[in-house]
Amino acid sequence: MAADATKDEVTAGFLVIGDEILSGRTKDKNIGFLADYLTAIGIDLREVRVVPDVQERIIEAVNALRVRYTYVFTSGGIGPTHDDITADSIAAAFGVAIDIDPRARAILEAHYPPGQLTSARLRMARIPNGADLIDNPVSKAPGFRLENVHVMAGVPSIMQAMVDAIAPTLKTGTKMLSRAVDADLPESRIAERIGEIQQDFPETLIGSYPRTSDGRFTTQIVIRARDESILDRATKAVEDAVQSATG
Amino acid sequence: MAADATKDEVTAGFLVIGDEILSGRTKDKNIGFLADYLTAIGIDLREVRVVPDVQERIIEAVNALRVRYTYVFTSGGIGPTHDDITADSIAAAFGVAIDIDPRARAILEAHYPPGQLTSARLRMARIPNGADLIDNPVSKAPGFRLENVHVMAGVPSIMQAMVDAIAPTLKTGTKMLSRAVDADLPESRIAERIGEIQQDFPETLIGSYPRTSDGRFTTQIVIRARDESILDRATKAVEDAVQSATG
Repeated sequence: MAADATKDEVTAGFLVIGDEILSGRTKDKNIGFLADYLTAIGIDLREVRVVPDVQERIIEAVNALRVRYTYVFTSGGIGPTHDDITADSIAAAFGVAIDIDPRARAILEAHYPPGQLTSARLRMARIPNGADLIDNPVSKAPGFRLENVHVMAGVPSIMQAMVDAIAPTLKTGTKMLSRAVDADLPESRIAERIGEIQQDFPETLIGSYPRTSDGRFTTQIVIRARDESILDRATKAVEDAVQSATG
Repeated sequence: MAADATKDEVTAGFLVIGDEILSGRTKDKNIGFLADYLTAIGIDLREVRVVPDVQERIIEAVNALRVRYTYVFTSGGIGPTHDDITADSIAAAFGVAIDIDPRARAILEAHYPPGQLTSARLRMARIPNGADLIDNPVSKAPGFRLENVHVMAGVPSIMQAMVDAIAPTLKTGTKMLSRAVDADLPESRIAERIGEIQQDFPETLIGSYPRTSDGRFTTQIVIRARDESILDRATKAVEDAVQSATG
């Protein structure tokens, strides 16, 4: 159990690896996907970091996250090119050796026509010692799991398939339930009352999210809790507050 | 000059604050926007972190980023509700006091009808001692700058307006130029040659980004450099490599 998780809580950190996200050339789609997915299966995503393809930055981030959360997930940097340094960086972070893995090599040999498994492609079989492979049904080159760290591809379709592959192996917590209340008001009109309701229901997490549509300010209030009856009572209190502020 | 920046380089870290991003309920749009914006004005975004509305996490992240990069930008958590704790957390990170700021209060007083500046709304005038205000043309409640940390709203339209407001005050580096070469090949077909070109042109950053479209694997190779003539020569080498691999 990681330091930041208490009973019934399973926590996660997510590390997005890639210069292309930081330069803006590629717009990340994996954070939103993983956030939704983990919430749905009862794992709390607590932190995300995006770092460049620089070994010391990857090592620093993965070592910070893996001691703090139950699970760490990474995306990006496991392809065949010179800038794909994630596997070597993870091995360095754990202080373990890395080499061509016979299981990964066999997968690639079965996939490519004879003579087509170039040394560049063989790079994708470099797996740290002691890791389990993560199946890649899309393009075959596997991800891997080393202790609590799950290393996945950055291409969203592949990353999503890998998350599906590992999900059955993950311990999940009591699922966090949520209700949303839409208020046709700027949030400052109900902020004080919502703060009181948060104090009345300490087992809940109440978030208030301002929105603009057509130049008008509206608010969505989201109430989250692991216990449904508490959630229902807190939601009723929020609905009553919105109604009295609107009326 | 921050530790991680060398001559002609201006660097940045971005801290996204909010439970709603980590739960998946809100899909972040600010990372991609800021990445594009900073690249366009010659500032290198080097790291992004997403943390929940938890004071110790905000303090830890902002203190890690502000000593490392020329600039830090934050989004989220400066509204009027109980879960908006960014301003107080930034003050705590710097070890400075925070209170209702007369300048911010005046802005809010001018904006709301008489009697409508509730105590919840007045929370938005809490600004750490020594900070400059950042103009908010959309909904008035200001952001602020404290030393190299720029604190902005999370709502994308407001965040973007705030970035426009502060951009003229930022020191910018020599702009990183980039060229993209599209290759109708899986990246493993050209990975080795691209790695050699990277070695031949150490002043460039060459990234290789696999894509899937209609089940086919293609690759975009992006070459970045601050010097245009080097960029042109490296790009020509990549184009030649792609042509010979395709033909």
